Amino acid sequence: MNQIIETIMNHRSIRNFSDKPLSNSQIKIIVESAQRASSSSNVMAYSIIGVSDQEVKDKLHTISGHAHVKTNGHLLIFCADLHRIDQLKGIEHTEAFQTNLESTEQFIVGTIDAALAAQNAAIAAESLGLGICYLGSLRNDIQAFNDVLKLPSHVVPLFGLAIGFPKEIPDIKPRLPLPAIYHENEYIPFEKQKHFIQEYDQTMKDYYESRNSNNKQETWTEQINKKYEKPTRMDVGPFVKGKNFNKH
Amino acid sequence: MNQIIETIMNHRSIRNFSDKPLSNSQIKIIVESAQRASSSSNVMAYSIIGVSDQEVKDKLHTISGHAHVKTNGHLLIFCADLHRIDQLKGIEHTEAFQTNLESTEQFIVGTIDAALAAQNAAIAAESLGLGICYLGSLRNDIQAFNDVLKLPSHVVPLFGLAIGFPKEIPDIKPRLPLPAIYHENEYIPFEKQKHFIQEYDQTMKDYYESRNSNNKQETWTEQINKKYEKPTRMDVGPFVKGKNFNKH
Repeated sequence: MNQIIETIMNHRSIRNFSDKPLSNSQIKIIVESAQRASSSSNVMAYSIIGVSDQEVKDKLHTISGHAHVKTNGHLLIFCADLHRIDQLKGIEHTEAFQTNLESTEQFIVGTIDAALAAQNAAIAAESLGLGICYLGSLRNDIQAFNDVLKLPSHVVPLFGLAIGFPKEIPDIKPRLPLPAIYHENEYIPFEKQKHFIQEYDQTMKDYYESRNSNNKQETWTEQINKKYEKPTRMDVGPFVKGKNFNKH
Repeated sequence: MNQIIETIMNHRSIRNFSDKPLSNSQIKIIVESAQRASSSSNVMAYSIIGVSDQEVKDKLHTISGHAHVKTNGHLLIFCADLHRIDQLKGIEHTEAFQTNLESTEQFIVGTIDAALAAQNAAIAAESLGLGICYLGSLRNDIQAFNDVLKLPSHVVPLFGLAIGFPKEIPDIKPRLPLPAIYHENEYIPFEKQKHFIQEYDQTMKDYYESRNSNNKQETWTEQINKKYEKPTRMDVGPFVKGKNFNKH
């Protein structure tokens, strides 16, 4: 196992940072790393908003509810961004151009471009000894998330990445067994994979029991069922369409 | 610059592989690396299909048109996957559960989960001296892409990742200048960023002129305009809804 794979394997989300800010050179190398990720046809359909202003962090904290949105070394927000491309054409925009921009296909392109860039940023940060945590919780109120950052049309805020100096190092969370997510040459029917999930349910029960800080006793299946019984963030769909994404 | 950031900075897409297959241990470490990426609330809403069967590769090659889909060391297909979660609940499915699964929010979750896993796989592969290329081109016919892999409901094939032993090492492609994609504390209006794009147009012109193998003389702006004038993959939107994703 080389140093890179070791860093990848060693990942855990950090939710408790000191308030020591990242240096400018750390931020620069993390963002440059993000930029080197692959991008569909080199369209680079994403933007990153770096948040260092405590007032902006506090506003985002109100949306997310997580302390590490307020207290971290730096906060990056990843957006799907077709605004740049929309603006390039200026007044000559044709109907076909617009139809293209507003397609589900282009929403997928922007979302994947942003996520690939983010994961490069995450690994670069971890390679510098920093901790990271993804923040989907900022979509708890996607309109407010958008408004705080003053995003124009054709820009959708997807998630945050809190980065900083860890104040604690939690255990690594077990994942589903490899064969539960990895299929060969064609999709394996769920019936044949069910026992891997039962195995994982036991793993997660043991994992939670072994932790002092957490009293969760649920299996993964129980967690999933509880989570999906309650529709959440149902405003994301209409919001995204309102930004001229994912319309058809 | 550490070894990890060096690997990230050194990325270029490889489109010419030998047909030497990856070893099983290489595949295992790459997939395990993918699994260690962050996942929204640990739902792991993605699956990976590893393609080693030449017949399956050939079928996918017909869809994509790129030679490196046919000739590589291994091919990974990344899917947004809520099928596993859908199946967990079995016959007790409530309407609320279904509404949740079929939301745009959950389509975003699956797409991001898959992309973060993929970028871990890409970096792990590159750290082993292998080359990679993302394949959005498999969405050229997303229904056929789906059918070749026998994907059930609630699974959407997103892209491929061709991995292998490089037969050539192309130049690193320049990206937009950092300030064109990186904003601070709020979104910077396009007017203030325009000159970075003009700068990049010149960079890309120079880049193409310096390459022997490629006669492209277009600026990035010209490429973008040409690309978006022609709506493509407009069947992706209806296909995704047909898989019970992204419906509201």
